[in-house]
This record gives sequence, structure tokens and C-alpha cells, in this order.
Amino acid sequence: MASATGPRTARGLSRVVFSGIQPTGVPHLGNYAGALRQWVNLQRDEPSTTKLFYSIVDLHAITIPQPPDQLRRWRREALASLLAIGIDPERCVLFHQSSVPAHSELMWILSCTASVGYLSRMTQWKSKLNLSASSTLEDKGVGGQLKLGLFSYPVLQAADILIHRATHVPVGHDQQQHLEFARECATNFNHAYGKHLVHPQTLIPPVHRVMSLTDPASKMSKSHKAERSRILITDSPKEIKSKISSALTDSIPGISYDSTTRPGISNLLDILSIFDSQSRSSSELAKEYSDLSPRQLKEMVSDAIISGLDGIRDRYFELLGSDNSYIDKVEADGARKARESAAETMSIVREAMGMGTPFVE
Amino acid sequence: MASATGPRTARGLSRVVFSGIQPTGVPHLGNYAGALRQWVNLQRDEPSTTKLFYSIVDLHAITIPQPPDQLRRWRREALASLLAIGIDPERCVLFHQSSVPAHSELMWILSCTASVGYLSRMTQWKSKLNLSASSTLEDKGVGGQLKLGLFSYPVLQAADILIHRATHVPVGHDQQQHLEFARECATNFNHAYGKHLVHPQTLIPPVHRVMSLTDPASKMSKSHKAERSRILITDSPKEIKSKISSALTDSIPGISYDSTTRPGISNLLDILSIFDSQSRSSSELAKEYSDLSPRQLKEMVSDAIISGLDGIRDRYFELLGSDNSYIDKVEADGARKARESAAETMSIVREAMGMGTPFVE
Repeated sequence: MASATGPRTARGLSRVVFSGIQPTGVPHLGNYAGALRQWVNLQRDEPSTTKLFYSIVDLHAITIPQPPDQLRRWRREALASLLAIGIDPERCVLFHQSSVPAHSELMWILSCTASVGYLSRMTQWKSKLNLSASSTLEDKGVGGQLKLGLFSYPVLQAADILIHRATHVPVGHDQQQHLEFARECATNFNHAYGKHLVHPQTLIPPVHRVMSLTDPASKMSKSHKAERSRILITDSPKEIKSKISSALTDSIPGISYDSTTRPGISNLLDILSIFDSQSRSSSELAKEYSDLSPRQLKEMVSDAIISGLDGIRDRYFELLGSDNSYIDKVEADGARKARESAAETMSIVREAMGMGTPFVE
Repeated sequence: MASATGPRTARGLSRVVFSGIQPTGVPHLGNYAGALRQWVNLQRDEPSTTKLFYSIVDLHAITIPQPPDQLRRWRREALASLLAIGIDPERCVLFHQSSVPAHSELMWILSCTASVGYLSRMTQWKSKLNLSASSTLEDKGVGGQLKLGLFSYPVLQAADILIHRATHVPVGHDQQQHLEFARECATNFNHAYGKHLVHPQTLIPPVHRVMSLTDPASKMSKSHKAERSRILITDSPKEIKSKISSALTDSIPGISYDSTTRPGISNLLDILSIFDSQSRSSSELAKEYSDLSPRQLKEMVSDAIISGLDGIRDRYFELLGSDNSYIDKVEADGARKARESAAETMSIVREAMGMGTPFVE
């Protein structure tokens, strides 16, 4: 079982990082700058004793209806994309959430101590249904519209984290509430059955919000209708140039940084900052390039993105263009490793609850 | 995969029966007369092509807090009891629910199309919390008290049934609502992903309600404080005689059947009817024995129970007194067979949803 330096408890010496991404096909620049680039950096920056779990969370994707053909394609594209940006399946445990039944098993167990009242006050189900934050379960029409999966999705997310005994979870501000809930789930379980689950800590990622190119007041999103609104990490240099050159800016002369009055220009500066080799902030870049025209700035931004994403497109198409045997192998290896990790926790959990050790084939 | 006569659809020729019992240790006479005796009879009466799935539903048990030591003991005692009454693990698939992760997996999938509004109108979570049937989720204190597991338990129950493609489920009147919900879950899934899940039908069991011996207005129950209120199927002849002789009756002379005015006497007649070799009804027995005294009736009832349960006690203690290897083997074999059955459905479900075939070790 666990060694003295193993990750069985938060007191252990080695760290365990868990992070997940929904399978929405090829990630866009916002996904890349917000989370995925950090996944790659953690491989480089964390000591080799740190376990890294990266999951394509397909069981979360189905809380919103998904056409099966699209989900099938998106799962595969997501996996190929992660490999293309440099996720190393030898260094990490890279897997589809639905390949590991223990995520669902622990979800059920945690749901037996999770409060419906707490879940009903959380905001995500309301925003997904376009309801106001003050909506309640008893509001007219809500109960019929709301599915149990969407309502209870924070519990599955808690299970994702707790099943691998994660000590650190990179979360943006919009996910802080969910990590707090995961800690609550661990507390509830430990209170009932003894201190067996690990409380995860927040690993705050660098704040890199990327906004829509056509509507810079909203985040760059896969669900936006206009393809020009987003840059995919597999876009060709020509597509990148075309999308950036048509990005919405303003008619104020020169370049300055103010995301309220100049959202389009500020977004371009933010993108430039993401790929800046000297790690200059958006404001510093604005000062440096204050005399440029929007067209000149856009050229710099295009070049920075093209250079920053260099190689990803080629690797992506190479992976998907091959006979799939490599991707299949990565998928199977990841599933096996993630199942082993989950089985260790399930064994502890079952023993603590009086359900003995499950029969294993 | 499935043959033309296989149980893959409700149109198939062979029937699939699913039934579950919570692990509350040794069953009492009410459990035996209400459900378990029918389990044994189905083995005898159903054609050999009918698949019988009998599950000890330990994942349901934890919707109410369970001391781990008690759950550990009760799971084992439940299994030994089922073997002792004559459940044949060669004829049936006899298994612990928590040994089959696919029950939890399908539960999550079904919850993504299950309506919170429908669940909130169901009555079981209200009765378990001692709330009135008109309670809602927004009533003061309800959300804090109600755990997600108890609230969503009908979805796990639906998964229990649908994962094994059951065509028939024996249910008492108090469970009709839950079977209707399981059909609703199948309809929701099939509507979204194609006709893959089987709609289960009700198999109404013979109505044999057994009431408490000390409080014949309530059902015989494991949770009643007084041990004298119930007869366990492993009670010794001496214990049975003692409990029946102290059963609450009334001071009306003679024997007659009226469960409202004479609940104690009527309950004794009902018990006599359960074990009557001529299958006479309680009313017929009342006429036959109208001149007996309560004491004489009680002696007949004791004798009928002792003879009806003959052998169960010995087999039970023999099973638990041995080195456990037989029970371990039954548990492992049942888990394996139930996993195989569930894997077939999960494969169909995953393919239909666009999640491909899971990696299998």
C-alpha cells in the first residue's frame, strides 16, 4: 500500500495535482492560456515526485445534452490536443474520466453525506440554465427544467479530486466555489468515517483571461456562434492572421491598456503578454507599443500566436492522421494508471465504511 | 453479444427478474413473507431461461448513516440468510450491489436526464426524514437536513434494474412509485440516445404484510426497539414460542378476523395463513378456529412458524460458523456474474452516448 512518503494523506511529502478539462474538441486560446499551458508547465516545474492527474471529464460533459457523434469526436480531439501541446503521458496520468468507474462510485458515496441545501445555493446550475443567482429549486419551472446530473455535478467534481487523493488543484476564480465544496465533501466523509480523504488545496493559476475576438466583453468560448470569435490551438498561420486582423477594436488613436474603455485592444495586448518572451505585462506592452496602429499591433499579435503555438497543429494532425494505435495506447495506459490510483482510495473508503474490500477480478 | 432469444430487449423471449434487499442483518418474518419467500419460489416456478438477479443493496443502506461495524456484519448476515432460506447461487446471480461499479456509473448517466422536480415530488425522502408528504425542498431546514444520496436514491434504484436489463421487478405497493420512476429513466435515456434500455414491468408479489407482535398497528420492522416485536428467521423454536406467546392480542372472546378492531389476532391469523399447507386465507382460518382461545391460537401459530422455518436456523449458523470460504466464494462468483451482466449494458449505453467502449483490463 502507501509508503511513508506516499500521497495517502496531506501530510505526505509528495504532492498530487488533479485537473480536468471538458471534451469540447480542440481547445481554443482561452483554454490554452487559462489552464492547459499550466498543465505543461507543471510537468517541467514540479519535482518528479509530484503526481500529475489530467482528466478529460466526459461524464461532466453529459450534464448538458451532447449529440453522441459530437461527443465521440470531441473526446478524441481533446486527447490528441493535449498530446499535441506537450502533455507527456509518461510523466502524467492522462485519462478519460468515464474510463474509471470509481469516479462514479465515490460520487455516490459522497452524495450520501452531501447537503442538498448547500448544492442548491451553488451558482453553476443556475448560470447553465440562464437563471438568476437568487433562483431556488421551488421557483416555477425550475424543477422540471433542472436535471439531477447538472444539480449534483459538484459532487462528481469532488469525487474526481478526492479519488486520486489530490493535494493541489489548479482552479480559476469561477471554480473556487467548487473546490470549497470538495473540501466540504472530504470533511463530511472524514467526520463520519475517520480521516481518510485528503483536503485539496488551491493552486491558483496565472490569471490569463482571453476574450472573444468579435465581442471582447465576453470570454472566448467554444459555444460562441462565430468561429472568428476564437482561435483554436490547431489553427493555421493563415487562419490566425485572418481572425486577428478582423478582431473588433476601436477608433481611438494609438495603443493603450484599459479593458473597460478599450476591450478589443486590451484583449490583443493580453494575448501578446501571454506569449511574450520577456514576460511583460499587458500595461508594459501598451507603453512600449503606444505609437503603433491597431493594424501593426495585430500583426505583432498574430506573429506571437503563430510562434507560440508553433508545432501544435502539425503534431495534432499527425496524431489524428495516423492509424490511431498510439492514441488508443495512450488512452488504455491512462485508464489503467488512473484505475490503479482510484482503486487504492476505494479500498480505504470501503474498508472505513464497513463494505469490506471489493471483489477484484 | 446477445442472441435472438437473449434478454437484451423486452421483446426477447426470456425474462429477467431483478430484486434487492437492504442489508439489515438477519431478515425478520415480514421480510421473509413479503419478498424473500417469493425469491425462493421464483427459482422453482420460473423457467430455466429466466435470469434471476438478487442483490444485497448496500449502496442504498448508506443513504442513512450506518455504523461501519454494523454494516460489515449486516452485509454478511444478509448473504448467509439468503443462502439459508434456499437461494441457490448456481441458479441466481446473488451479489452485493457495491461489488458492481456499473450500478453507480449508470446512476450518474441516468441522473443527467432525470428531473429534479420529479424527484422532489417523490415521497420516500420525506418519510425517511419524518416530513409530511407536502414538504418541499425549500421548506425551512429541509435542505440542510436532506442529503443528496437520500434524495437521488430512486435514480440508483433505477440503475440497479436497468443495468441488468430486467423485464420484471417484484414490488410491493410502497415501491410502485419507484418502479414507475425507473421506467421514466429508461424513457428519458431512450428518447435521448435511442431504444437501448428495457422498460421493466411490475411483478406483484403475494400480499403478505406481517405486523409487529407488540404493536400490531405497525409493520414488523428491524428498527423497532423491542426485539419481542419481531421474529427473525433464525430464531430458535424456544424464542419463537416465547415471542408469539407474549404477542399483544385483545380480550374479545373467540377468534375472528378484523384487522381494524382485532389487529393482534388478525396478525396471528395472517402469519398462520402464510405457512398454511392448504393455502387457506386468514378469514377461512378464523372461521375454522373460531372457538379457540388466544392461547391455543398462539400455540398453533408458533408450531406453524417453527415448522415453516425449519432448517433455516441450522443452515445459517453452519454457514457463518464455517471458515467463511464458501460465503467468500459465493460473494466473488456473484460479483463476477453481475459484473458481466452489467458490462454488456454499459457497453451498449456508452456506444449510444458517444463514449465508445471503455478500456477493459
